[in-house]
Amino acid sequence: MTELTFKDPDIAGFRALLAGMAPDPADPPPTIEQRRASTDAWGESMPLPEGVVAEPVTLGGVPGVRHRPATADAGGTLLYLHGGGYVTGSSRSHGAFVAHLAEAAGMMGVALDYRLAPEHRFPAAMDDAVAAYRALLDEGAAPERLAVGGDSAGGGLTVATALALKAQGLPQPGALYAISPWADLTQSGASYAGRCAERDPMITRAGLDDMAAAYLGGADAHDPLASPVFGDLSGLAPLYIQCGGDEALLSDSLKLAEVAALSGLEVRLEVWPEMIHVWPVFHRYLGAGRRAIADAAAWLRAHTGSGG
Amino acid sequence: MTELTFKDPDIAGFRALLAGMAPDPADPPPTIEQRRASTDAWGESMPLPEGVVAEPVTLGGVPGVRHRPATADAGGTLLYLHGGGYVTGSSRSHGAFVAHLAEAAGMMGVALDYRLAPEHRFPAAMDDAVAAYRALLDEGAAPERLAVGGDSAGGGLTVATALALKAQGLPQPGALYAISPWADLTQSGASYAGRCAERDPMITRAGLDDMAAAYLGGADAHDPLASPVFGDLSGLAPLYIQCGGDEALLSDSLKLAEVAALSGLEVRLEVWPEMIHVWPVFHRYLGAGRRAIADAAAWLRAHTGSGG
Repeated sequence: MTELTFKDPDIAGFRALLAGMAPDPADPPPTIEQRRASTDAWGESMPLPEGVVAEPVTLGGVPGVRHRPATADAGGTLLYLHGGGYVTGSSRSHGAFVAHLAEAAGMMGVALDYRLAPEHRFPAAMDDAVAAYRALLDEGAAPERLAVGGDSAGGGLTVATALALKAQGLPQPGALYAISPWADLTQSGASYAGRCAERDPMITRAGLDDMAAAYLGGADAHDPLASPVFGDLSGLAPLYIQCGGDEALLSDSLKLAEVAALSGLEVRLEVWPEMIHVWPVFHRYLGAGRRAIADAAAWLRAHTGSGG
Repeated sequence: MTELTFKDPDIAGFRALLAGMAPDPADPPPTIEQRRASTDAWGESMPLPEGVVAEPVTLGGVPGVRHRPATADAGGTLLYLHGGGYVTGSSRSHGAFVAHLAEAAGMMGVALDYRLAPEHRFPAAMDDAVAAYRALLDEGAAPERLAVGGDSAGGGLTVATALALKAQGLPQPGALYAISPWADLTQSGASYAGRCAERDPMITRAGLDDMAAAYLGGADAHDPLASPVFGDLSGLAPLYIQCGGDEALLSDSLKLAEVAALSGLEVRLEVWPEMIHVWPVFHRYLGAGRRAIADAAAWLRAHTGSGG
């Protein structure tokens, strides 16, 4: 890779931090248990915003953590589906992020512990997300006050969940929010090669192929409930996609926006130059991550009537 | 076309208005002079916002009208390139729209009378836009305080102009704003068939083919300065695209966003469901047009440091 230069004041430093965290290539690759543990430990090192009350919940049999910011009014909830390639991530890894997002949006935020692969294969994650959404409705939530969101695998899962809601005759939420979504488990996008892939410090096609195999087992990667870019997205809720300009998954966002737009959805797509995969999750280090959260929060407020 | 139903309170009424304005198919088709005159008369029927001072200008030899709202600080200018398929439109047809947009953005707004086809063929329109931009620089404007924007053909011309600025070694403006851009003069997009085309009350592929022929003469429609979706957009200014969900030109916006994103640009793409070609221009009739202007204005302020 040629030496990269950046206009953003924070991204070079964060890339150096990431590089320093990379495992020694001389060591054996980490086990899945080690990957999960380190992801969770990293997330738990982040403080919750002041005044946010976190409580364990079970929604439709699925565990999670409900974050209740002081800013939240009653009834608005963001059901958040974490990233981690369907194999890692949890309410521990993403809890503080969900709390920050929920506080900014004036909503409650549920960090859902959907079942992970390879122990639990497609469509277990989606089934859990639908069960949790249904439980929020059963609690009395108005669907237009709900949002579903997620990053990376959780971003693709957000749209897959909305497709499943449609198929099951459940009402759509008020909003769908996807950060750097992994929405095409065939890895067919143009951004897996060329400048995006070359500048991506985190995501490789080989890594995605491995995680797709772990999640799909024998299922077809073209199944719209695994890869929503192959679905009929008509009738889904408004969709806001944020994606980095320096990430191999950029094409997934572009394709998802295209399919959604041609289906008649309200779509907002933002490509943030120099930003990398799921940079809003790294908001502690990146001013652009904090700005992305603020933009998402304003949009979530407008689309769910949240935050007074 | 099957009967359409709409959630938006304004769009059905506006579609009925458009249908009532359509020429009688028994009459001979209007001449180009008649089309220009009716477009101009329509635009001139719109009042300017109160307090906006409009004055004729000549920028780099190109005539236009400079709108100076009371909200504008010194130095911020939106150079606006009207739509009309390169064959119709003017500072008369789009002046009031430019004035509204400029007032909302806290900038001066120049409605440029670039030369029209078929009398003046490609690249005359682009040459005029570049000459006007250069004249704004020569007046002392800081490029980061400038924006270039336009609708339909003017949206494509906006990006073509930015490509020409790059080729000529001129600095990029702070922002590019394209409403329903016509950015692919080969009409290759998916939205020229199917639900978008079927729901579009204004734009047909045949009509675009005619206007492309008038503008291009013998030039290649794949020339990036005519069809910027075929260009190398790297190094261009941040790009904000607004497009209607019910328009045949939707694919041009999607393709433009894709090419821009893969080139590393900052991109914001919004697809507004049920909205038709260049609906912000029809803000007098459409609340969604007024909201689109407000969103664009906020983005232009943020990207050009305008409006105090």
